[in-house]
Amino acid sequence: MFEMKSFAQQYQRELLDNVIPFWLQHSKDTEHGGFFTCLDRYGNVFDTDKFIWLQGRQVWMFSMLYNNVEKKQEWLDMALHGADFLEKYGRDEEGSFYFSLDQTGKPLIQPYNIFSDCFAAMAFGALYKAVPNPRYAEIAKQTFANIVRRQNNPKGKYSKAYPGTRELKNFALPMILCNLSLELEHILGSDTVNEFIPGVLHEVMDVFYHEETGLILENVFLDGSFSDSFEGRLLNPGHAIEAMWFIMDLAERLNDPALAQKANDIALRTLEYGWDKEHGGIFYFLDIKGAPTQQLEWDQKLWWVHLETLVCLAKGYQKTGDERNAEWFKIVHEYTWNHFKDKEYNEWFGYLDRRGDVLLNLKGGKWKGCFHVPRGLYQVWKTLEKPVFASKEERLSI
Amino acid sequence: MFEMKSFAQQYQRELLDNVIPFWLQHSKDTEHGGFFTCLDRYGNVFDTDKFIWLQGRQVWMFSMLYNNVEKKQEWLDMALHGADFLEKYGRDEEGSFYFSLDQTGKPLIQPYNIFSDCFAAMAFGALYKAVPNPRYAEIAKQTFANIVRRQNNPKGKYSKAYPGTRELKNFALPMILCNLSLELEHILGSDTVNEFIPGVLHEVMDVFYHEETGLILENVFLDGSFSDSFEGRLLNPGHAIEAMWFIMDLAERLNDPALAQKANDIALRTLEYGWDKEHGGIFYFLDIKGAPTQQLEWDQKLWWVHLETLVCLAKGYQKTGDERNAEWFKIVHEYTWNHFKDKEYNEWFGYLDRRGDVLLNLKGGKWKGCFHVPRGLYQVWKTLEKPVFASKEERLSI
Repeated sequence: MFEMKSFAQQYQRELLDNVIPFWLQHSKDTEHGGFFTCLDRYGNVFDTDKFIWLQGRQVWMFSMLYNNVEKKQEWLDMALHGADFLEKYGRDEEGSFYFSLDQTGKPLIQPYNIFSDCFAAMAFGALYKAVPNPRYAEIAKQTFANIVRRQNNPKGKYSKAYPGTRELKNFALPMILCNLSLELEHILGSDTVNEFIPGVLHEVMDVFYHEETGLILENVFLDGSFSDSFEGRLLNPGHAIEAMWFIMDLAERLNDPALAQKANDIALRTLEYGWDKEHGGIFYFLDIKGAPTQQLEWDQKLWWVHLETLVCLAKGYQKTGDERNAEWFKIVHEYTWNHFKDKEYNEWFGYLDRRGDVLLNLKGGKWKGCFHVPRGLYQVWKTLEKPVFASKEERLSI
Repeated sequence: MFEMKSFAQQYQRELLDNVIPFWLQHSKDTEHGGFFTCLDRYGNVFDTDKFIWLQGRQVWMFSMLYNNVEKKQEWLDMALHGADFLEKYGRDEEGSFYFSLDQTGKPLIQPYNIFSDCFAAMAFGALYKAVPNPRYAEIAKQTFANIVRRQNNPKGKYSKAYPGTRELKNFALPMILCNLSLELEHILGSDTVNEFIPGVLHEVMDVFYHEETGLILENVFLDGSFSDSFEGRLLNPGHAIEAMWFIMDLAERLNDPALAQKANDIALRTLEYGWDKEHGGIFYFLDIKGAPTQQLEWDQKLWWVHLETLVCLAKGYQKTGDERNAEWFKIVHEYTWNHFKDKEYNEWFGYLDRRGDVLLNLKGGKWKGCFHVPRGLYQVWKTLEKPVFASKEERLSI
């Protein structure tokens, strides 16, 4: 049998000796605060804009490491450095986080995108665990309330859709709320989270779930039905698989092994469907009817898709003991480490073409920051260290 | 010497025997009006949305063929069929054209994008030449006025940029206005066009022109200076080259051979810069400082880029007799016909990966319609038929 556990140390070492040092060394803007994320292969800054998703995610990452791995002062300092910038410059007068700022903190792109709020709330939630300053809890709490308030119209006045013709809702928000509600439980309280969970769980596992194929759609009509349009036909395998490990975390929280099993089955089906049989790796976008996608980047192989898949396979294995997880883990692990890891310099590549060659040799940019690589390495490391909840033998003997 | 002229018939035949029949046969929505543009390799409809850019462009194309090639009733019928749909459903209450409609004509995406207006104005302008119905002239005229009114704030309330931090302007609008003003001269009158030309010419040839490299930028600050940001560093070689043949048309209108020569020099420099030395073809996007682009599709080879380049090389040759044009024409011609033309079915592929393999095997979609392939074929055909204005020998003997 393939020994999943034997990989734990490899993930741990890569996280602590390679990836985190890259961000510690290169991303801190000591002049204006916050983090540079547009870093080339060697760690040089090639653009100075500050993207709120990535500012928030990096604060979360260093807070989380401080909370869960080791009380290292330099990790906490990084988290505080980013949080300070976010607190000072991140929000408009309504408390919504901008999408981006310039290097000095002046707003560039308006809060048209609700995920800035999501990642900022995560950031202040995790930081509050490290430093129990009530201001951090307050920002997390208010931002969460803001997300809930905006959730049915997340783009607000920035939406270009004409009202009424084709009202769609998008998978990303309920998916992230699954994760965010657990991330903020220490602030929101268990009662609030208990009330909140059934709704988002229903959205992810029933509403966006496409019965006919057993896959998860990116966009559906408000009533949950299928829209035969570019948006409605869209599949994002990485997104669906990432969501399934959020659901497995919820299953643990709810003590519901059947839910974990169901999530694992969807993830495996999605992976099977999204795997590129010709060149290896997982496609970025697909059309559920096999039509051409709008996204020209559909066939590219992205770092986060592969890291989230490794996390999901590890968690699914730990929770179900399903041997398919171990088999797939080996395949995805090999593809990921062979293609995304930069063998010469720290951190990993983010964007490969279909054949697995590097498409952009950056280590960070507008969307790639200190998040999916280190979070993925951390999650796999910690998951593989746990005992397998139910090995196949155990399940058979029950 | 390479015989440019010998290619004229090849372009003519491809236009009339292959490409136009494809659209005549497959794109007409006889039920709800307008055109289907999402057509797969074989001409089957894979999506029914109606994109205003492409509706307008197709009306323009069939009107133009009727005006300039032959008074074929089926061409005029196609133009009228599309114009009728546009007139009925295309505009909001302010007279701005939507970005897209559903199959039946209900608005889907708001007029956030001013190019819908540009292509609709072109459409009604060309149709008015074919059928002198004053309503068509009126729509073209009003829409042009609307574009001029909106030109300094083309996205209006749909802009996500925070006002004041980084005010940029984009190359596409002045570039298209160079072409549109000539397209509408019969409606606007020569005086209006004469007044209009110097401004747009200055924008294209001075403001967006980057002295240091001799290339054309996609975005500059309002005062014309360089912005060291993702947007400011962006190059779109196909865009710049297309604009240079618009400028050559203006040079003809203005009887200004020096302007044509200048445009040709910029086009050749851009082509040299944008050509993929490894795999052939012209890159879609580049960063002027060599930094990674935001656009994941940067290395792809797009049909319109190559067709516009062939037009520009042919026009530049016809206007200057520069032998570099003939050399480049041969190279780009071979790449284009070998990779974009579908050898088995009508019409051409639109999207290739860096290596020149087909990335999406559609013949039309959200952005590709009955426009760049047929217009390019038409323009090359007609240009190569003209006598060369100044052959090298003639120029030397002057």
